[in-house]
Amino acid sequence: MKHCLDVGAVTNRLKRIEGQVRGLIKMVEEGKKCEEILIQIGSAKAALHKTGQLILEDHLHTCVVDGIRDGKEDETINKLSSAIEQFSRIV
Amino acid sequence: MKHCLDVGAVTNRLKRIEGQVRGLIKMVEEGKKCEEILIQIGSAKAALHKTGQLILEDHLHTCVVDGIRDGKEDETINKLSSAIEQFSRIV
Amino acid sequence: MKHCLDVGAVTNRLKRIEGQVRGLIKMVEEGKKCEEILIQIGSAKAALHKTGQLILEDHLHTCVVDGIRDGKEDETINKLSSAIEQFSRIV
Amino acid sequence: MKHCLDVGAVTNRLKRIEGQVRGLIKMVEEGKKCEEILIQIGSAKAALHKTGQLILEDHLHTCVVDGIRDGKEDETINKLSSAIEQFSRIV
Repeated sequence: MKHCLDVGAVTNRLKRIEGQVRGLIKMVEEGKKCEEILIQIGSAKAALHKTGQLILEDHLHTCVVDGIRDGKEDETINKLSSAIEQFSRIV
Repeated sequence: MKHCLDVGAVTNRLKRIEGQVRGLIKMVEEGKKCEEILIQIGSAKAALHKTGQLILEDHLHTCVVDGIRDGKEDETINKLSSAIEQFSRIV
Repeated sequence: MKHCLDVGAVTNRLKRIEGQVRGLIKMVEEGKKCEEILIQIGSAKAALHKTGQLILEDHLHTCVVDGIRDGKEDETINKLSSAIEQFSRIV
Repeated sequence: MKHCLDVGAVTNRLKRIEGQVRGLIKMVEEGKKCEEILIQIGSAKAALHKTGQLILEDHLHTCVVDGIRDGKEDETINKLSSAIEQFSRIV
């Protein structure tokens, strides 16, 4: 199956985020200052958000276009709406 | 040095988030649907946000109160402001 | 021109948000507590976000489906991507 | 009562936001494109967020410092935590 994502690029981003989270665990264990930890949490959150935006963009250009061309508008758009809603919320 | 955080509770949360990110990498490699990946990214982002809120709450109750009692208001509040600003932003 | 939005429903929401912002101005002028003001700002922000999500959902079901059916995939998806990116960011 | 906020600066910001929301109502009524409306909603949301950050910063430097100096740590910090939590969430 051909995936609509650039798998290599997305996994590279996610591996960097995994590294950021591991770095956060180390910062907490080493007693680093809360302010520094909070700033790094903000940075990891922003990196996840950016990754999601890239996935969404690829998805729109490929799967969404294909789904609509194939006559599956309602299914395609309902799934997309729900994914965007849950992705763009905080908390 | 006594840390103002509950180190065990925070690292447990961060380890769960690390697991979520590793799960995301697996989802991408296995060709899972973009919508499912986006929903999981939203979930990991929310978990990071919640962890940051708990760190912030502990920090306010301990380091911030101590800093102000010790007469270091400006330093304490300036660092806190900047950390909240960067933590609460997305992108 | 037929608009893809339910104009009445969206303007009603926006009028309520306009009322919330006017209420915020009154709270500031009357010296209400910062915490109460911040909570109301969070509420107005969430109401704007929810309105945006509804507009996006209508837009996906109508204009986006039409644009793709009419063969204007690239134009439709590029504009949509950029609007989602700017709508879902904070700051 | 002296307010910890710069009332003039905050009401000016809020009045601009009120204008942005009125502009949004007009855009919807005139049938402007959804993408343009979404971008303006993102902009109004960011302006509210920025206003909240400024209120929070003033509040930290004045009321929070005063409350802690007056020995009301728990009350001051509990109210602050809850306001930050509700202000920084989306949806």
